[in-house]
Amino acid sequence: MFEFDVQYRDGRARVAQLHTPRGTVTTPMFMPVGTQGTVKGVSPQELLEIGSQMILGNTYHLMLRPGEALVEAHGGLPGFTAYPGPFLTDSGGFQVMSLGHMRKITEEGVTFKSHLDGSLVKLTPERSIEVQQALGADIIMAFDECPPYPAEREYIQRSLERTERWLGRSLSAKTNDHQALFAIVQGGVHEDLRRQSLALTLPYDTPGFAIGGLAVGEPKDQMYPAVAFTAAHLPEHKPRYLMGVGHPEDLVAGIALGVDMFDCVYPTRTGRFGYALTDDGRLNMNSSAPRRELVPMDADCDCYACRNYTRAYLAHLVKAEEMLAPRMLSLHNLRYLHRLVERARAAIERGEYHVWASEWAERYFKGQIPAWFQQAIDTGRSATPDPAI
Amino acid sequence: MFEFDVQYRDGRARVAQLHTPRGTVTTPMFMPVGTQGTVKGVSPQELLEIGSQMILGNTYHLMLRPGEALVEAHGGLPGFTAYPGPFLTDSGGFQVMSLGHMRKITEEGVTFKSHLDGSLVKLTPERSIEVQQALGADIIMAFDECPPYPAEREYIQRSLERTERWLGRSLSAKTNDHQALFAIVQGGVHEDLRRQSLALTLPYDTPGFAIGGLAVGEPKDQMYPAVAFTAAHLPEHKPRYLMGVGHPEDLVAGIALGVDMFDCVYPTRTGRFGYALTDDGRLNMNSSAPRRELVPMDADCDCYACRNYTRAYLAHLVKAEEMLAPRMLSLHNLRYLHRLVERARAAIERGEYHVWASEWAERYFKGQIPAWFQQAIDTGRSATPDPAI
Repeated sequence: MFEFDVQYRDGRARVAQLHTPRGTVTTPMFMPVGTQGTVKGVSPQELLEIGSQMILGNTYHLMLRPGEALVEAHGGLPGFTAYPGPFLTDSGGFQVMSLGHMRKITEEGVTFKSHLDGSLVKLTPERSIEVQQALGADIIMAFDECPPYPAEREYIQRSLERTERWLGRSLSAKTNDHQALFAIVQGGVHEDLRRQSLALTLPYDTPGFAIGGLAVGEPKDQMYPAVAFTAAHLPEHKPRYLMGVGHPEDLVAGIALGVDMFDCVYPTRTGRFGYALTDDGRLNMNSSAPRRELVPMDADCDCYACRNYTRAYLAHLVKAEEMLAPRMLSLHNLRYLHRLVERARAAIERGEYHVWASEWAERYFKGQIPAWFQQAIDTGRSATPDPAI
Repeated sequence: MFEFDVQYRDGRARVAQLHTPRGTVTTPMFMPVGTQGTVKGVSPQELLEIGSQMILGNTYHLMLRPGEALVEAHGGLPGFTAYPGPFLTDSGGFQVMSLGHMRKITEEGVTFKSHLDGSLVKLTPERSIEVQQALGADIIMAFDECPPYPAEREYIQRSLERTERWLGRSLSAKTNDHQALFAIVQGGVHEDLRRQSLALTLPYDTPGFAIGGLAVGEPKDQMYPAVAFTAAHLPEHKPRYLMGVGHPEDLVAGIALGVDMFDCVYPTRTGRFGYALTDDGRLNMNSSAPRRELVPMDADCDCYACRNYTRAYLAHLVKAEEMLAPRMLSLHNLRYLHRLVERARAAIERGEYHVWASEWAERYFKGQIPAWFQQAIDTGRSATPDPAI
């Protein structure tokens, strides 16, 4: 269980199978986010149809509402949500930082006021694991602290040291064998701090490792060197999960650097705002042009919206504020990201990842490929450095 | 085309097949309302799965946005909305009355300010038919005036006379053979005015007749005698359509009185407000009780929501204001009404409609069957009176 079989490699990019109690998934993969026990606007049946493999649930939200006991009474997230496949839950740490009010961080854990009713709630490594065990995901995350960007170097360092102690407590609190607990490497955008966090984290030899603390506001040209460095020093035979990422270009760059797992609310959120992801960039369905176009949002896409609807129809729904609009745009955007990683996997299997990624980027960025992206692709082509830290 | 084959009769209730260019439908039927070119929150695929047979589109809304020309450019409503079955469009008359501002009614037609942008718009019988031909529904409606409730007798009388002249102009304006134009009988809750409207309308011998001007605020004990009288005097071999109705109890009562077609926004609207239709009455998913119940909303229902979800899960979604909640409740409520007419048809076929309707009502009204309902069922059992007016 939780074996990770790498089947193809191309530079640092790889295709692998990850075995979980609720089924085997193929990486690289993008995980739709079901914050409150539902991927906003998309049914489990639709998630299966568009090729979703693993759904992310948010510990912070679910512990506050409806409470983990109710989810557990349904047999965990699969029974509660009717999505029959594997789940991953985060530890709650990140969202305490971003959503909790008046939070107080001590060695014990974090005390904060619920964003729902202002009640005082405490989250510790032990409590996070207790909740995550009740939620019953296949993969659970160590309780960590994710510093904001920017943050003082000294703060990031103290924080990553505490994150390591919390990892130890998270592992000690875990009482079952059917959930895999992934550790999280922190260190912000500082290579030496990432190195330190790696040195503290790797000895725990967890079944997978996450790259945390990124995509929190730092520029991409600081983020990707940190991804490259961290991913290169994580074990070859364990999955690497870049948390809270990302946009299409982030997936293509991250995969080049050896990342296997991604999650982000972006595809559903931007869909609710009326934007459709395509190989030509983001299509603004709020603008007037699509209202006259009798072609699919994305002619290459096989989702229900693109098979059945014109841009004109969907743009009408957006304008008329009809529920079917965010529903269809969310569905399409998730399918776009799933298709993107499917194409990435095929390119890795052919040994042509950098060619495919460059061609994809040429069109997506309309000939203006950003330096950070090109550097990620180039770095990914080169051999992985000596994994020794 | 547009033949109406009555296959079973039980008292005044009947089961029939109505043939349209886009397929044959079985009546009695409930038509989901797709006001702006979408049944709110429900996809065409789902509509087919739950047994929808014909979808209603609103001329008033679609002519204002996106404009009938765009719908026509898609080959009409089926191409625009991706629902492949039959459609019916209303004439726009009712919604001009309820939504247009500063409307002015003359013999020529109605001038009003759009509820969207305040622009001045004119709707006449000729314009209504022009729009409805562009929208391309299988069944279109004569442009009529629907007086509010209450209204002066004299006003209702002048209005029904004008409605007859508008019917003549609607029929003259129609230039194709693949759409059936239904006439609308008005007359408020007054039997003599209904009789007058029938006398004016029946000679046009349209392929179907609607009972208009009801369910606009009048008490049920005034509405149902008007339904009974009007339905009884409409031709036996033509479909009868009770416009803008209804609630579950309205379908059961209307079918008893010989009504074949119904439409209403109620199931989707009440679903968006968090209410689920069941044989035990309306279940309030906003209340606290369902949040603890690990049973389906409706154990008898075969919809996706009832097959997959507990009340506790769906009540959580309602509380968390997740899009899947109005989506699933709308789907369930439509399926509930479709199942209700399916059960009604089966009872008619068995010759036991009044038995089934009484048993259904006993449970639905929790033993407190209202007099208007009982009277409708009893009237429906009796032979149809002499159809002569």
